[in-house]
Amino acid sequence: MKKLINDPATVIPDALRGLAAAHSELRVDFENRIVYRADAPVSGKVGLISGGGSGHEPLHGGFVGPGMLDAACAGEVFTSPVPDQMVAATKAVDAGAGVLHIVKNYTGDVMNFEMAAEIAAAETGVEVASVVTNDDVAVEDSLYTAGRRGVGVTVLLEKIAGAAAEEGRPLAAVAEVARKVNANGRSMGMALTSCTVPAAGKPTFDLPDNEMEIGIGIHGEPGRRRVPVAPAREIAEMLMTPILSDLDFKQDAVIVFVNGMGGTPLIELYVMYHEVAEILAKSGVSIARSLVGPYITSLDMAGCSVTLVKADDELLRLWDAPVRTPGLRWGV
Amino acid sequence: MKKLINDPATVIPDALRGLAAAHSELRVDFENRIVYRADAPVSGKVGLISGGGSGHEPLHGGFVGPGMLDAACAGEVFTSPVPDQMVAATKAVDAGAGVLHIVKNYTGDVMNFEMAAEIAAAETGVEVASVVTNDDVAVEDSLYTAGRRGVGVTVLLEKIAGAAAEEGRPLAAVAEVARKVNANGRSMGMALTSCTVPAAGKPTFDLPDNEMEIGIGIHGEPGRRRVPVAPAREIAEMLMTPILSDLDFKQDAVIVFVNGMGGTPLIELYVMYHEVAEILAKSGVSIARSLVGPYITSLDMAGCSVTLVKADDELLRLWDAPVRTPGLRWGV
Repeated sequence: MKKLINDPATVIPDALRGLAAAHSELRVDFENRIVYRADAPVSGKVGLISGGGSGHEPLHGGFVGPGMLDAACAGEVFTSPVPDQMVAATKAVDAGAGVLHIVKNYTGDVMNFEMAAEIAAAETGVEVASVVTNDDVAVEDSLYTAGRRGVGVTVLLEKIAGAAAEEGRPLAAVAEVARKVNANGRSMGMALTSCTVPAAGKPTFDLPDNEMEIGIGIHGEPGRRRVPVAPAREIAEMLMTPILSDLDFKQDAVIVFVNGMGGTPLIELYVMYHEVAEILAKSGVSIARSLVGPYITSLDMAGCSVTLVKADDELLRLWDAPVRTPGLRWGV
Repeated sequence: MKKLINDPATVIPDALRGLAAAHSELRVDFENRIVYRADAPVSGKVGLISGGGSGHEPLHGGFVGPGMLDAACAGEVFTSPVPDQMVAATKAVDAGAGVLHIVKNYTGDVMNFEMAAEIAAAETGVEVASVVTNDDVAVEDSLYTAGRRGVGVTVLLEKIAGAAAEEGRPLAAVAEVARKVNANGRSMGMALTSCTVPAAGKPTFDLPDNEMEIGIGIHGEPGRRRVPVAPAREIAEMLMTPILSDLDFKQDAVIVFVNGMGGTPLIELYVMYHEVAEILAKSGVSIARSLVGPYITSLDMAGCSVTLVKADDELLRLWDAPVRTPGLRWGV
């Protein structure tokens, strides 16, 4: 294993220290491993928190800031944070308007966030709503998941719901926008190589030099099938066909997100984006906005995922609203 | 070789098509492989062009837009663009205020940009100034280079000089700011793995599982030495010691840039940033601004580089000015 780390046991605290050092507009609770907006709680605003296993950076800590999350809880690599972290974050970002939990659909995350919501409500009376993302069309049920996995939609949802909260909408309305993004979104991913979890010290799975995994999960969970490596054009078809047959994207403007898994360079993501755009053009789907880059990664895995979200004028306006986070920034 | 490409021969045009499809605020001349601001030439403004071998994305095409470059010429992977491309770009972005060529110090790039400047001046009378970046402290002379190589400073220079041009400064003043950034900047990089050039189909060099290369170039050119893999803390020392002994950074505010080589995920870059910040604190160097991410890459190489630029109030103000490009964006 070759990684830019000190010790597998200190990767998370070391990375959090780096995040804090590089971004003075964030405040990091190192003991609880929570990244906050420095100005949280923001008066009158619904608080947004998310979190999950580490190893998906910039998700979630890199999406904390004005226009997106108020706090993110970092678990160990590919392991849910614990309820205590979520309770602490929930209390800290509540300014009286309530708190939205944004949860990717993995059994541990869902259970821990549910427990945290109950504890926070019981202890302080804070109102908590939750949205669970489950946009991955690759598989029903999986390692770590009952139902579909939450993947790329989470990034777009955090941006859009964050903008809704910034506008001062009440908790129910922010949760409604968040659920709309999830309901309107679909994703699928693939891997050319495995990731390597630092504590394991070796690749999570073996993938021969001439094969790739279609429908991979962001923790290296098995996908739909292994097939021989193929040109980008065919890979794009393998990802887009299940997405487009799962939801009708033809009547709406669409936000298109081509995501890198961590080990794939940008030049390849643009090659993929071109193929995705060609398929959408042939399918009569019109692209309204685009995002290309590594935003929900799987450590050093080489590969990509594609996410589509149907977006009406309201969602597009919220997408375009100013955001200032380490991972996504514009308008400020 | 496992890559998200169609064919080694079409990687550049395919990626340019993806860039154009994802960013309607850019205009791409596919025949000449030039990425333009859609509104170029910008009346009254000095034009900024850069370019170089492909494989370093987002550099340079991803840094085209308001507040940064007016055009970028894409060569084949790790190969200089030809003078014809540079002449075409120079003519196209000239609005009468002249054009600045930003050139990384590689023999082919320097020669071709010089030739292009002469041709453009002779054919159309456009005034051209050039700045050559040579910030890599690792080696004097190298494969492809006489003198020091131009690396990470190029990113910061394109941002800062772009802001100076946007303010309406004359060509000589924009060139002066650019030269100041280069003179005030130093970098050094390292690799955990080789990159793989698509047309070669195999790694550029062999690096055993227990070794890394300190002082690597962005094309995989040899660095200073190969050493056993080490913790991030020691790697940071190996990069920072030569940088800090090459230029005195103590009296000034500093922009710190921890760059990913393409195959290294963000979590590791933040681990590295933490170590770099610790060394700077111990050395009495104060950090004014930070940039962490893969901005000048080497295809799929795993590794990182560190760049420091001494920045007075003027350079910091230009760094903070609005920018809207695919690779760097804030304020708009």
